[in-house]
Amino acid sequence: MKPYQEMSREELTAERNTLMEEYRRFQAMELSLNMARGLPCRDQLDLSMGMMDALYSGADLSCEDGTDCRNYGVLDGILEAKVLLGAMMENHPDNLIIYGNSSLNVMYDTVARAMTHGVMGSTPWFKLAHPKFLCPAPGYDRHFAITEYFGIEMIPVPMTPTGPDMDEVERLVASDDSIKGIWCVPKYSNPQGISYSDETVRRFARLKPAARDFRIFWDNAYGIHHLYDDHQDHIVEILEECKHAGNPDLVYKFASTSKITFPGSGIAALATSENNLVDIRKQLKIQTIGHDKVNQLRHVRFFKNIDGMRDHMKKHAEILRPKFEAVEEILERELGGRDIGSWTKPKGGYFISFDAMPGCARSIVDHAKKAGVTMTPAGATWPYGKDPEDRNIRIAPTYPPLSDLKTAAELFALCVRLVSVEKLLEI
Amino acid sequence: MKPYQEMSREELTAERNTLMEEYRRFQAMELSLNMARGLPCRDQLDLSMGMMDALYSGADLSCEDGTDCRNYGVLDGILEAKVLLGAMMENHPDNLIIYGNSSLNVMYDTVARAMTHGVMGSTPWFKLAHPKFLCPAPGYDRHFAITEYFGIEMIPVPMTPTGPDMDEVERLVASDDSIKGIWCVPKYSNPQGISYSDETVRRFARLKPAARDFRIFWDNAYGIHHLYDDHQDHIVEILEECKHAGNPDLVYKFASTSKITFPGSGIAALATSENNLVDIRKQLKIQTIGHDKVNQLRHVRFFKNIDGMRDHMKKHAEILRPKFEAVEEILERELGGRDIGSWTKPKGGYFISFDAMPGCARSIVDHAKKAGVTMTPAGATWPYGKDPEDRNIRIAPTYPPLSDLKTAAELFALCVRLVSVEKLLEI
Repeated sequence: MKPYQEMSREELTAERNTLMEEYRRFQAMELSLNMARGLPCRDQLDLSMGMMDALYSGADLSCEDGTDCRNYGVLDGILEAKVLLGAMMENHPDNLIIYGNSSLNVMYDTVARAMTHGVMGSTPWFKLAHPKFLCPAPGYDRHFAITEYFGIEMIPVPMTPTGPDMDEVERLVASDDSIKGIWCVPKYSNPQGISYSDETVRRFARLKPAARDFRIFWDNAYGIHHLYDDHQDHIVEILEECKHAGNPDLVYKFASTSKITFPGSGIAALATSENNLVDIRKQLKIQTIGHDKVNQLRHVRFFKNIDGMRDHMKKHAEILRPKFEAVEEILERELGGRDIGSWTKPKGGYFISFDAMPGCARSIVDHAKKAGVTMTPAGATWPYGKDPEDRNIRIAPTYPPLSDLKTAAELFALCVRLVSVEKLLEI
Repeated sequence: MKPYQEMSREELTAERNTLMEEYRRFQAMELSLNMARGLPCRDQLDLSMGMMDALYSGADLSCEDGTDCRNYGVLDGILEAKVLLGAMMENHPDNLIIYGNSSLNVMYDTVARAMTHGVMGSTPWFKLAHPKFLCPAPGYDRHFAITEYFGIEMIPVPMTPTGPDMDEVERLVASDDSIKGIWCVPKYSNPQGISYSDETVRRFARLKPAARDFRIFWDNAYGIHHLYDDHQDHIVEILEECKHAGNPDLVYKFASTSKITFPGSGIAALATSENNLVDIRKQLKIQTIGHDKVNQLRHVRFFKNIDGMRDHMKKHAEILRPKFEAVEEILERELGGRDIGSWTKPKGGYFISFDAMPGCARSIVDHAKKAGVTMTPAGATWPYGKDPEDRNIRIAPTYPPLSDLKTAAELFALCVRLVSVEKLLEI
């Protein structure tokens, strides 16, 4: 395959004409496909239908300790759920609070609480002239939306194949006490699907932030969301590592069963140090009498234990793996060797990250849209929706059926080629 | 029955000795009973076990409009749930947002949002020197805890048999633009079980607050929680009344199914004007992708419609009515004519409010505790836990089995007599 950069104007023009013809054929198909969000597909949702039978009218809805899950109480979750999600998160049950249906909501509330009440006695962030967050980019748009909503200035930090640029992170947090946090998706990251190296996690645990109330927002959304049985990423457990490093209170770790059972009807959890838990419970007891214990029990009865959950995740992988592989094959076939884009090949998670030639991402997404395929908006993976090089596009291959997905990926690759050719012709 | 105030010292001393003997008999029973919180009892929880069968592995978890409740999305709730809870709240489904499991959480979040982002474009309350709330007292301790947590000054307003003292409410909100809200439980109020009169509601709807961002926090927690079939309170619907009065944005109305199905595993809702909804959704979409739609669907499939819900509430009433009546009978039998306390006789809700002689409430609760009966702490029904006259005690008769409840109520009445005699002997 000849790289586009090495083509003459004539070759590029010819290529453009061929691609335009093909693009028009796609347009004529009047597609309506969606690769925008990390939605599980119907087959995946069907995997958890058994959970609807886990509780029934004749069942005893009591915990092992006798707590009636149907009534009020138990602020931070039933023990069985802490044990199950603790095993999932690789944390001791005592370090967990079990929440409602959304870890995003827990993250929002965590930032909101710091805004109005500070962190472990620190000055509430709203009283500060200019609180800031580090945002490894590309990253997760809904994280960035929370900090933007609260007026927290977001500073992008480059992502590398081993995680955020730690030289930059260390330098920034040590030098500026108005930097209060950093958003991380440490495993099968959103959108790249990369996992932080052991060194990256260890450097995180050893950060020396100028701000006493700096916290790492460790969104381990895809902790057990592997695509392969034999080919999995492992990351160092951050809470334990922070403890070893003498920084026990440095991290808030988030997870949920949203992409294990039902998105929106799962259970979320936060794991952190006892000091942080004491701080959080002071607020939590004002906010609620307790989260949905019946749903916690339902999850526990369905999975029984972490082995049940792992077996369940293998079934997800069987559905998702062919989708990821199909997209990767199409990208390789259509774009390989042309030197007009690069993409990640994740071993888990929900996304593939695509980097186009600078200045092309918006136009590629726009072209796809006009031919009936919705992608995540270009720029969404950057703070304030502003990708400085207009390069990054997040591909979400999970939701469409395989045949639709292939069509969508083919159109996407075509749009990349077309926009790249046009870009080169402009110069 | 001779009023205690008319007894001689000798008579009072003799009475005291008799009562002390009886108190010691109770102490020897080593009771452990609880009339502290508004918890449904086991029999009530059993009424909703059928809901656990409403969804099952073979069921279609789709809405009428085709939405798959198992997946992400639908920020403000499925239409079916809006229709059901709209009927329950007497509001149009379009005016509702369906939330998670806790209306208290919705109220907390509503105050939190106003603190950090104001109300419909107003200055965030945290930027104000001194935001204030009116707190009709006695009232609900968890309401007061929210405003206290956010450093909002709480101003008690006297409760009357027809609701808050509206002369006082009108005067205060009109004269002070730092007064931003008022907590109300308009029907079968907590703790008195009284319902606001038509005039009270109409005057609420016609308030002329100095603060543009003043809101009525209308916690209609007990809207359909009647004790009697033929003998029910009705209140004027506040949203509609506000609209008529030209004050459409004045009220946030809250409700939930916590005391209809399972506390902690129900669904909560907020009803308000379109302007307020637009304002709220701006924040809600940052906070979450959506609440638990499967649980919304579960409620809809279980009740089918408002008639199903009303029939269900009759079953609750059959369990609760004898409990309320037992407590009232015991109070009447033991205290009637002695002129040492008064109590409410609610037609619904979860509480009876007891007013002791001034300066006696704490001691009564303390005496009850020492004989094994836990009451809501005295003072809890007032802002900051400070009952200026130390008179009010909330009685929660719902949780204990009837026989235990009778014992607890008898002990409580005895403690009232004992503490009152001691008080009179002091003078």
